[in-house]
Amino acid sequence: MAKVAQARQAGSLIESPDITPEELQLAVRNHSMPLEALRYAITPVGLHYLLIHFDIPTVDVADYELTVAGHVRTPQRFTLDQLAARPSTTLVVTLECAGNGRARLSPRPMSQPWLAEAVGTAEWTGTPLAPILEEAGVLDGAHDVVFTGLDRGVQGGVDQYYERSLSLTDAMRDEVLLAYAINGRPLPPQHGFPLRLIVPGWYGMTQVKWLRSITVLDRLFAGYQQARAYHRRATADDSGVPVTRMLPRALMVPPGVPDFMSRTRFVEPAMHTIEGRAWSGRAPISGVDFSADGGASWTEVTLDAPVSPFAWNGWSHRWGPTAAGEYELCVRATDAAGNVQPMDQSWNLEGVENNAVQRVHVVVGAAADRQEPADSR
Amino acid sequence: MAKVAQARQAGSLIESPDITPEELQLAVRNHSMPLEALRYAITPVGLHYLLIHFDIPTVDVADYELTVAGHVRTPQRFTLDQLAARPSTTLVVTLECAGNGRARLSPRPMSQPWLAEAVGTAEWTGTPLAPILEEAGVLDGAHDVVFTGLDRGVQGGVDQYYERSLSLTDAMRDEVLLAYAINGRPLPPQHGFPLRLIVPGWYGMTQVKWLRSITVLDRLFAGYQQARAYHRRATADDSGVPVTRMLPRALMVPPGVPDFMSRTRFVEPAMHTIEGRAWSGRAPISGVDFSADGGASWTEVTLDAPVSPFAWNGWSHRWGPTAAGEYELCVRATDAAGNVQPMDQSWNLEGVENNAVQRVHVVVGAAADRQEPADSR
Repeated sequence: MAKVAQARQAGSLIESPDITPEELQLAVRNHSMPLEALRYAITPVGLHYLLIHFDIPTVDVADYELTVAGHVRTPQRFTLDQLAARPSTTLVVTLECAGNGRARLSPRPMSQPWLAEAVGTAEWTGTPLAPILEEAGVLDGAHDVVFTGLDRGVQGGVDQYYERSLSLTDAMRDEVLLAYAINGRPLPPQHGFPLRLIVPGWYGMTQVKWLRSITVLDRLFAGYQQARAYHRRATADDSGVPVTRMLPRALMVPPGVPDFMSRTRFVEPAMHTIEGRAWSGRAPISGVDFSADGGASWTEVTLDAPVSPFAWNGWSHRWGPTAAGEYELCVRATDAAGNVQPMDQSWNLEGVENNAVQRVHVVVGAAADRQEPADSR
Repeated sequence: MAKVAQARQAGSLIESPDITPEELQLAVRNHSMPLEALRYAITPVGLHYLLIHFDIPTVDVADYELTVAGHVRTPQRFTLDQLAARPSTTLVVTLECAGNGRARLSPRPMSQPWLAEAVGTAEWTGTPLAPILEEAGVLDGAHDVVFTGLDRGVQGGVDQYYERSLSLTDAMRDEVLLAYAINGRPLPPQHGFPLRLIVPGWYGMTQVKWLRSITVLDRLFAGYQQARAYHRRATADDSGVPVTRMLPRALMVPPGVPDFMSRTRFVEPAMHTIEGRAWSGRAPISGVDFSADGGASWTEVTLDAPVSPFAWNGWSHRWGPTAAGEYELCVRATDAAGNVQPMDQSWNLEGVENNAVQRVHVVVGAAADRQEPADSR
């Protein structure tokens, strides 16, 4: 274990804005949603963000079975066909990684180095969980419901299958699904084939993929991903606050065209429709504000109805820069519970729940030389 | 342009192994293929590697038209329906980014920071290009055929639509397709909807996505992506060698289970089947060798037939470590033209064609504490 122990571990605080080789290994595997994909109300498969802690398991559906057991009267087993034969529900749900925004923090907690776009919205089809728990007959004294995945690895020195829990009350909510399809097709491997949990409104760590079992406990679940990871803590001694539902966030499609490397945007001096999406897992979005001066002044944008009760709202705003020069565009979402995105990065030891406002650097005016396309000559 | 000019540009040489914030912006957008997806002969959509220079364009297929013009007798225009009504071909093709392996170089040319897995294999369906050029009637003196995409941005100070060319001879090869489907479904936005070029055997920069036009020139094409980018050069003064066909590479599915952050693999002391894929765009793969001691000694693996004449070969090897400890596993491909993967990183100014052998750090033995899954208690 010598070399492994010497390696920087997840959670190490990195002072440099530069990304370590360890973080790069995660960044090349997992991906966020390119911001221009905010144009789609439903994110196409392949553009939805992905965070996979360990390896994607390969599952032979002929051997697959979901077990429902623990503190219940009648343990249950289901093949995928049996689950698909149950009543089905399709919900449009926005999912976001709890670590979204982590790479903007300083010092930066070492983990998946997300910027701001670890999000996606999909149409999930599955069968509601509550009737399954009712049929199993949850016994008096039940406390947590544990969801165990087929994906195994080591994190924080603990060899584990990925497991997260919900309180029985949260697990019994109508909108909690065991999903076997995304955007009308069977789950692809990376989204949890053949079955995953969908808990609308909650951050991504809750949405257990490659689900192999559901276990009702008569006590608190103390697994690594529940009790140690995914807390908002100031220090290692701080017991912290568990991460649950998504804080509000708005994102815009960066206008104009990008520079390949800096991603600076070049924009014509003309009227532009700035468009984007906003979401919160805490309450409906009540407003989105736009700023073209780095947050010094704000204008309320036009907000569309949400795509579903559990998904983002589209929004748009007309912006017409007349003077050449540099601008910093920002958007800020507020939800009906009064949660507002902060202007500053929201630091904590794990780098979770950092929903600071997006800033897009824009240059109005021509971008140096222009290559006439071959088809114009 | 002040701030933009100050930013480090693509191609800057970075001495540190740490990744700059500019590179991270590309790494969170573009993604490679998680190595465990080597298990699939055909890569599922969403796991295939993606490199997108600028933004993904949004195309309304009702307005879409491909033009074929330039140094031809009869310029042509095609709607997507007209292209789909032409004879169709389906080819299984392995595609790899020319910059695969760049992040292993020192100093590192600043660009997309790939490790080793910027690859994927898909079943592409489309219509052959050669008959379209024949119908257009290429005139005497034709030299290059330029493929112009709908994606626009700034690179190297040049505002450009993405454009690459092929010689007329290369463009007329039977296997060159205008593809409108991947794995039996219409192209998703990120793979070039509604139409892209597929040139089997060539690195990814050739496979122009969101294709809007094909222009036959009576001269060499001198566009940025052809004449300036994608050359193997030792220095800036070196005119270099254009990047064309893929060099050989083998990759293995890392055995065992990963540590979340270090990606070190923990493996039981038992017999394991190590499996992977190998490919070359230069010639058929003639052999793959495996080493469990960092390349000191090699054993030839069992090679399967290629998935298609233009796709990777599967391979497998039995490995049974009996002693606990650390191992460095390597695989090395050789093709029938005598190209062999180098052991050392293959440095050049743009960080292209670095096909150094993969090294996987493995720890045989137990990985610290084990969390018993909730469903086993």
